[in-house]
Amino acid sequence: MFKNRENVKEIEEGNLLSPKFDNDGLIPVITMCVKTREILMHGYMNVESLKLTIETKEAHYWSRSRKQIWHKGKTSGFTQKVKEIRIDDDQDSIWLTVDIGNGSSCHVGYRSCFYRSIPLGKIDEAKKIEMKFEEKEKKFDPEKVYKDLPNPTKI
Amino acid sequence: MFKNRENVKEIEEGNLLSPKFDNDGLIPVITMCVKTREILMHGYMNVESLKLTIETKEAHYWSRSRKQIWHKGKTSGFTQKVKEIRIDDDQDSIWLTVDIGNGSSCHVGYRSCFYRSIPLGKIDEAKKIEMKFEEKEKKFDPEKVYKDLPNPTKI
Repeated sequence: MFKNRENVKEIEEGNLLSPKFDNDGLIPVITMCVKTREILMHGYMNVESLKLTIETKEAHYWSRSRKQIWHKGKTSGFTQKVKEIRIDDDQDSIWLTVDIGNGSSCHVGYRSCFYRSIPLGKIDEAKKIEMKFEEKEKKFDPEKVYKDLPNPTKI
Repeated sequence: MFKNRENVKEIEEGNLLSPKFDNDGLIPVITMCVKTREILMHGYMNVESLKLTIETKEAHYWSRSRKQIWHKGKTSGFTQKVKEIRIDDDQDSIWLTVDIGNGSSCHVGYRSCFYRSIPLGKIDEAKKIEMKFEEKEKKFDPEKVYKDLPNPTKI
């Protein structure tokens, strides 16, 4: 179903899908909310999760922490209905636009995983950089939703 | 300037920046246009390019093909003025919102690198998947702009 990556011109200017998976068999994925146009998360797919996403129209990722296919929202109920899939010029990253209704995307409880901003301007290297919370309130309580499931965040 | 990554709670709920760089010293970056809210590109930063981006308010990446700091737009003139930087829950990916005016972001000549979409639905594995061009016209002629510079796309 994928065209072999044989020459740069075909990869960049052609109309046949020939995605590049990295040494771990993964391709990075940007997930955007169709309603707010905010970035919800940054994830990864392998061949199987990309295929499942295309066919089921629900986002499937590869969970690097659990080392398994991850049907997003299966536990929390916040599945992502895929509205559009795009791929970039050299076909090594994917942009997914999804509908999550009034749901959330972030396992910490916020709507978007990107709930903190980094201030711009001169850095004082003697100090730690303080971020700002752009989302003030959690949309759900992760302890209630995920119960005893392990936290995917790794140090 | 970065807090050490010591516990999950601080990484997820704290306000101190403690980014996670991968084994190659890189963190993935999503770049969005502030005007159209489209994704322009997906790139990578190392510590130095992240610092340069924060301080100069112009996007700097790490070019994996050229293996050097990449001040985006230095050759084409299409620099990216950074409006906001966000980081995700486990601090291993970055979302940049930038102003490129009427410029372009893609070295192939399109405005966004994500100029092709992948059709949704049942896949016939005997056939190659045909994509659709969502941008119809190039915004500039890469041969005129980049002249003899090597193409960053790798097979």
